[in-house]
Amino acid sequence: MADLYLALLHYPVYDKDRKVVTTSITNMDIHDIARSARTYGVKRYFVVTPVRTLQALAEKILDHWQEGYGSTYNETRKDALALVTLSNDLDSTVQAIQHETGERPHLVATSAHTGTRRTTFTEVRRRVEEAGPPLLLMLGTGWGLTEEVLERADDILEPIKGVGTYNHLSVRAAAAILLDRLRGAR
Amino acid sequence: MADLYLALLHYPVYDKDRKVVTTSITNMDIHDIARSARTYGVKRYFVVTPVRTLQALAEKILDHWQEGYGSTYNETRKDALALVTLSNDLDSTVQAIQHETGERPHLVATSAHTGTRRTTFTEVRRRVEEAGPPLLLMLGTGWGLTEEVLERADDILEPIKGVGTYNHLSVRAAAAILLDRLRGAR
Repeated sequence: MADLYLALLHYPVYDKDRKVVTTSITNMDIHDIARSARTYGVKRYFVVTPVRTLQALAEKILDHWQEGYGSTYNETRKDALALVTLSNDLDSTVQAIQHETGERPHLVATSAHTGTRRTTFTEVRRRVEEAGPPLLLMLGTGWGLTEEVLERADDILEPIKGVGTYNHLSVRAAAAILLDRLRGAR
Repeated sequence: MADLYLALLHYPVYDKDRKVVTTSITNMDIHDIARSARTYGVKRYFVVTPVRTLQALAEKILDHWQEGYGSTYNETRKDALALVTLSNDLDSTVQAIQHETGERPHLVATSAHTGTRRTTFTEVRRRVEEAGPPLLLMLGTGWGLTEEVLERADDILEPIKGVGTYNHLSVRAAAAILLDRLRGAR
């Protein structure tokens, strides 16, 4: 099985008017996605933001659960949050993985939209199951990853389809479903 | 396809010491699960609590997105939250579905634990795909649904398995994965 990494990008992402913005870090994104990451054997969950004050906020949350009162109140939360790594941008995230594994990660972007270049879940799952290079699954906050990030990706995963055309899952729900489709027990 | 309903129970559920408690309603549970429910064609998402003041809080949240500023700021959120119905308890939830469909719903409980009486995702998915009675998928907040609720269910769905033994998904992540496994496009 390939090593699987996850990155939640707070920049560069679109807002609802398709302007490129930096979104805020939220407590719930860190917790929920860390717990999903832990469930599906993700090696590390990168919370990516260039904003130092938001990094400091995230560190405070992590400290509470890693070292503070939360660490004894709820150990399963501690286990999950141990996967979280703060990172400035995509470049340093890729470098950290390269440093850890000795290989450049295969970049898989996610999008709620269909488009010309999309890879199926079956194909990406096959890659996850093989003993190839590490994979970095990239998720965008706000209204999603910018075109610039999609273009940089080796694969753009097809959108999650439910019933009908509604495609406004929360990033927390999308992360959970993606991990289950790529690594859930079948 | 059978009509699919979802209920998030805030009572009766366990706390971490396996005491039966009522948990608080949270904004994020309403929003995230409503968006997942909308994505997977759920007919109605019941937020179940016996506490009137918490029902009033939930109504305030819903009003903001249904009628207030939120309804024009973000229409996709309005679409999702239109599925939310507040309910006092499991009995009145079952009655509401019976009233709406003319049939008693088939009750499917969820649990993070294995046990003697568990139904596979494949079997429940088959039931969802058939033109049978409506299904009510029941999720517990806190540390999960009590034995009393599990015993009342017609089926108890097998736990979601990832990689390894960690089984502490958030209820928002679990709801998303359950819906995708039962109704996602394959």
